[in-house]
Amino acid sequence: MDDHLFDRMREFTSALQDDICAALSECDGAAAFEELVWERPGGGGGRARIIQGGDVIERGGVNASVVHGPLPPGLGDELPGQGATFRAAGISVVLHPLNPKAPSVHANFRRIERGETAWYGGGADLTPHYLFEDDARHFHGVWKAVCDRHALADHAAWKQACDDYFYVAHRREHRGIGGIFFDHVMGDEHGGADLVEDAGRAFVEAYVPIMRRRASSPWSEEERMWQLVRRGRYVEFNLVYDRGTAFGLRTEGNVEAILMSLPDPVRWVYAPEPESDSWEARTLDVLRNPRNWV
Amino acid sequence: MDDHLFDRMREFTSALQDDICAALSECDGAAAFEELVWERPGGGGGRARIIQGGDVIERGGVNASVVHGPLPPGLGDELPGQGATFRAAGISVVLHPLNPKAPSVHANFRRIERGETAWYGGGADLTPHYLFEDDARHFHGVWKAVCDRHALADHAAWKQACDDYFYVAHRREHRGIGGIFFDHVMGDEHGGADLVEDAGRAFVEAYVPIMRRRASSPWSEEERMWQLVRRGRYVEFNLVYDRGTAFGLRTEGNVEAILMSLPDPVRWVYAPEPESDSWEARTLDVLRNPRNWV
Repeated sequence: MDDHLFDRMREFTSALQDDICAALSECDGAAAFEELVWERPGGGGGRARIIQGGDVIERGGVNASVVHGPLPPGLGDELPGQGATFRAAGISVVLHPLNPKAPSVHANFRRIERGETAWYGGGADLTPHYLFEDDARHFHGVWKAVCDRHALADHAAWKQACDDYFYVAHRREHRGIGGIFFDHVMGDEHGGADLVEDAGRAFVEAYVPIMRRRASSPWSEEERMWQLVRRGRYVEFNLVYDRGTAFGLRTEGNVEAILMSLPDPVRWVYAPEPESDSWEARTLDVLRNPRNWV
Repeated sequence: MDDHLFDRMREFTSALQDDICAALSECDGAAAFEELVWERPGGGGGRARIIQGGDVIERGGVNASVVHGPLPPGLGDELPGQGATFRAAGISVVLHPLNPKAPSVHANFRRIERGETAWYGGGADLTPHYLFEDDARHFHGVWKAVCDRHALADHAAWKQACDDYFYVAHRREHRGIGGIFFDHVMGDEHGGADLVEDAGRAFVEAYVPIMRRRASSPWSEEERMWQLVRRGRYVEFNLVYDRGTAFGLRTEGNVEAILMSLPDPVRWVYAPEPESDSWEARTLDVLRNPRNWV
């Protein structure tokens, strides 16, 4: 265990939480963050800032946590390293805007230690309900630039890993249009902390300009309905496939802090495919067939 | 494989689907069933009748399916019997009424065969958002009476199995107030088919009188909100824990037929516990501490 690097990650994620919340509050006067300070029964805890009912963000949150203790049963085989205890410091962000034209976004940055083994993981991905190609290029461009600044990073592999990970197998579609995803980056001697901090700081640049330019788009009832149905797919991914959600629930993280990732409101309706060549169909086509954007 | 008993189950589930849909249509003039006939890529298929936007039932469905083929990877270790192929005939029902005072309900009856081994499984459970003790006693009373008519059945054990199964571990609460749940009942020589058919036929008697007497209850916006938030817990159970949903998704059942179990609309909000001694708090108390109703 490296106390210096662990403390550095803890301080970084706490400061980043402040920065992200400040940037969001600037865009969304009505987005009051409710702060939930939670303790984990097995050790540690976190501070979740949850938004609901903002003018721009309908539901979401920014959660910073530092947890430690015995590894929960079954997790030993899944994680690198040896030893029966772990600790982790991380931040996760999920935002579901009110406007159907504004994409949902997710990001997560974390350091995990097990015995003498330490690694970083994280990433960011965008989930538009109505695809704007400019937004996709901007979002992917920011992550490509971050990767290009660090020898440890491999943009092509991490972009692919993101497409592979955020896949709703039973729907045969991806959750969104991707971004980057990395895990088990063991870079204590090679700038792992620098990389993760650079990526974390890039989140505001990657997302906020998109949110700003889509938040006041006009929208119809039909477009709102499409958004609410697509949000159901987001819930399906998070509850059926997401390892982060499963890890949180199995390590007895705070349920409200973990499930702040779920949008609100959500609809499940039995409905036919969108009309061919409609905006909805073209968006779905990209969700089914990921593209390279940079 | 016993073709006679398999055919009998197929015919029974098909007839039961007609009977249940007829009983529901009688209560809910506006509940138009949309019929979805689906084929399973690996063999077999089904006929789902999906309701949405009825006056009484807001969303739900009745699905009869007969599937067969090679066992999907990983399922071999989980099922009784030997052999690389299976077949199954079953019916499942899920109904989410519009009125917050009317409980959601789920029932499922199935015969599965693997090689020379055949078994029945099924059950029914009730999910009130506002508990009426009379309803709970009526529902459990019907299933107790069914069990009492069959030597193969064990009401006390099956009631307990239902409470154990429908448990949302991360919320430390049960999905509803239970009913009965049984699996791996190998009763080909001892009346297994009679038992399952008797149980299936009891569904209308167990649920429809409750639906009728609650469907026109007055309700407030706050009660509607509580219902929509509680529906979120239903989604959490079905997507995180339910083996039937996982089995359906892994055996490439039809996604719309499997996920007709999800309610609509649904909300996730960060909200405090209900006020102590409120109707909501008293209902939650029963969801946290299951009771014996008969």
